[in-house]
Amino acid sequence: MHSTIDLQEKIEKGLAELSFNSSPAELYEPMHYMLSLGGKRMRPLLVMMGCDMFNGAVEKAIHAALGIELFHNFTLLHDDIMDKAPLRRSKQTVHEKWDINVAILSGDAMFVKSFQLIMMTEDKIVRSVTDIFSRTAIEVCEGQQLDMNFEQHKNICIADYINMISCKTAVLLGASLEIGALIAGASATDAQHLYSFGKNIGIAFQLQDDLLDVYGDKNKFGKLQGGDILSNKKTFLYLKAIEVLDESSSENLKKLYNTTTDFKPEEKLKSVMSLFDRAHIKQWAKDEMQHFHNNALQHVADIHLPPENKKPLLDFCENLMVREI
Amino acid sequence: MHSTIDLQEKIEKGLAELSFNSSPAELYEPMHYMLSLGGKRMRPLLVMMGCDMFNGAVEKAIHAALGIELFHNFTLLHDDIMDKAPLRRSKQTVHEKWDINVAILSGDAMFVKSFQLIMMTEDKIVRSVTDIFSRTAIEVCEGQQLDMNFEQHKNICIADYINMISCKTAVLLGASLEIGALIAGASATDAQHLYSFGKNIGIAFQLQDDLLDVYGDKNKFGKLQGGDILSNKKTFLYLKAIEVLDESSSENLKKLYNTTTDFKPEEKLKSVMSLFDRAHIKQWAKDEMQHFHNNALQHVADIHLPPENKKPLLDFCENLMVREI
Repeated sequence: MHSTIDLQEKIEKGLAELSFNSSPAELYEPMHYMLSLGGKRMRPLLVMMGCDMFNGAVEKAIHAALGIELFHNFTLLHDDIMDKAPLRRSKQTVHEKWDINVAILSGDAMFVKSFQLIMMTEDKIVRSVTDIFSRTAIEVCEGQQLDMNFEQHKNICIADYINMISCKTAVLLGASLEIGALIAGASATDAQHLYSFGKNIGIAFQLQDDLLDVYGDKNKFGKLQGGDILSNKKTFLYLKAIEVLDESSSENLKKLYNTTTDFKPEEKLKSVMSLFDRAHIKQWAKDEMQHFHNNALQHVADIHLPPENKKPLLDFCENLMVREI
Repeated sequence: MHSTIDLQEKIEKGLAELSFNSSPAELYEPMHYMLSLGGKRMRPLLVMMGCDMFNGAVEKAIHAALGIELFHNFTLLHDDIMDKAPLRRSKQTVHEKWDINVAILSGDAMFVKSFQLIMMTEDKIVRSVTDIFSRTAIEVCEGQQLDMNFEQHKNICIADYINMISCKTAVLLGASLEIGALIAGASATDAQHLYSFGKNIGIAFQLQDDLLDVYGDKNKFGKLQGGDILSNKKTFLYLKAIEVLDESSSENLKKLYNTTTDFKPEEKLKSVMSLFDRAHIKQWAKDEMQHFHNNALQHVADIHLPPENKKPLLDFCENLMVREI
C-alpha cells in the first residue's frame, strides 16, 4: 500500500499536469488560480485511499481524484460569489480578482472539466461512478441552498442542520471514497460501507469545526474565536442550546443572534458563551460528534478487508479528529 | 419517419414529465420556471430528427434530447445573470424573480440534471455522446466569454466573430444532431457530417439574425429594429462595414458605436444604416450567410442516406431561412 505522502505527491503532480486551453484567458486563468490556492486536497486523497485500501492500482484512480478536486473547487468558486466572500485561503476570491461574470463562467467550465475527468474511468464502472458523482453534485447544490435558507429561516431543528452539513460537505467525502473503492474493484456493498464511513466522518468533522470555533485554541487553529457566533451562524451549538435551555435563556440567545440588533463583539461573545456553558453545549456537541464518529467506525468494521488495509485511512481520519477540546 | 409535429409533441410530453425534487424550493422551482417559459425547443428537436433520419427509434433519443434542452436552459439562466437581462421571453429572468444566488445555484443543478439525462444513452455509445456533449459545453462557455470580451476589445475581425457565434450557438446545434445520429447507430463519419451541417447552418442562422435586426420587417419578427445597433453590438454587419468602408467612413462608424458618446436613437440608427448601405452590407451579409448555408448542404449531401431520409431536416431548416430580406 502507498503512504499518504506518496498519494498526496501523485495528486499534486496530477494537478500540476492538468492543462486547459489558454484562450479565452478569462475562462481558464481563474481555474488555474483557484487550484493554485492550495488546500488540503482531502477529497482526491480519499479517492486514492479508497482505491489503495482495496489493493487497486492508484494510477487508475488519479483522473477521478482530480475530477473530484476540480468539482470541489468549482463549488467553492460559486459559493464564494453567493457568500460575498472577499478572501479564500488569504487570497482574493475569483469574483474579487476578476468579476462575478468571470467567476460564474469559469466555475461552469471547471464543472465540465470535472465531468470529463470523472468520465475517464474504465467502461465497466463508468456508469456507477458517474451516478454517484452526479447524485452527489445535486446534493451539494441542495446543501448550499439549505445553508443560505438557514440564514433567513427561524425554525430550524438539529435534524435540518445535520441534513444540511451532510449535503453541503459530508456526502462528497463519502462519494470520494466510494468512487475510489469501485475503481479498485470493490463490491458494491463494501463501497457503500466506505461511502457511509466518509459521510459520517464528514458530519463529525463539521461538528468538530463548530466546536473549535468556540472552544478551540485560536493560536493552534489560526481562526478568530467565535467567528460563527459573531456572524450569527446557526451551528449545532446554537441550535442545541435553543433546544435545551429554559425559555427565557433561549429567548436571550435568539435575541443575541438577531441580526437587526447591534452588540459589541466582545460582549456578545461573552453572553453567548455563558449561555452555551449553561446549556453544557460542549458536552452535547462532543457526544453528537462521537455518535457520528462511532457510526463511521462501524461501517469500516463491516468492510471485508484485513485490518492492515483499513489502517491508513483510519489513521488519517484519527489525525484529523482533535482530542483536546 | 416521424413528422416534425409528432417529434415536438414527444419533446413537450418528455419535458412535462421531468420530475425534480421539490425541496429546497429555491433550487427546483427556477428549473421548472425556466422550462415553462417555452421556446422553440429546436435543439431537442434536432436530436430527435438526427435519430429519425438514420431510422433510429426516437424513444431512445428522448433522454438525450431533454438533456440538451436542460443544458441550453442552464446556459440561458447563467447568461441572463451575466448580461443583466431583466426579461426572457417577455417574463422576468430567474435572477430578477428570485435573486442572483438562486440563479447561479439552480443553474448549476440544472447542469447536473442535463448530464444525468445525457448519461441515459446506451452503453455502446455513452462515451462518444458524453465526449461530444462535454466538449460542446466547454465551447459554449468559451463562446459566452468571447462574446463578453468583444464588448471591450477594439480589434475584432470577422474570423473572431464567426468563431464566437460558432462556439456560443452553432456547435450545440451540430452536437444535437450528431448525438441523435449516434443514438440511431449512424457511422462516426455520417454523424460528423451531420454535426458539420448543424454547425454551419447555425452560423447561417446567426448571420440571418444579424441581418434581420437591421433589415427585417419589424412587424413580422416582433423585435425592435436596430436593437443591435443601439446596444453597440459588434455583429457581422458592423465588423464587415469597418473592413470595407474608406477610412473616414469607418472612423465615423466607430464613433457612432462608441459607448461613451450619447446619440439620439433615431439619428444614430439613421447614420449607421446609411453607412451600412454605403458599404453594401446587406449583400455582404447575404453572401456570407449563403456561404455557410452551402457548406451545410454539402455536408448533408455527403451523408450515406437516401434523399427521403434527409428531406424532413432540410425542409425544417429551409423554413427557418428567411428569403425576403
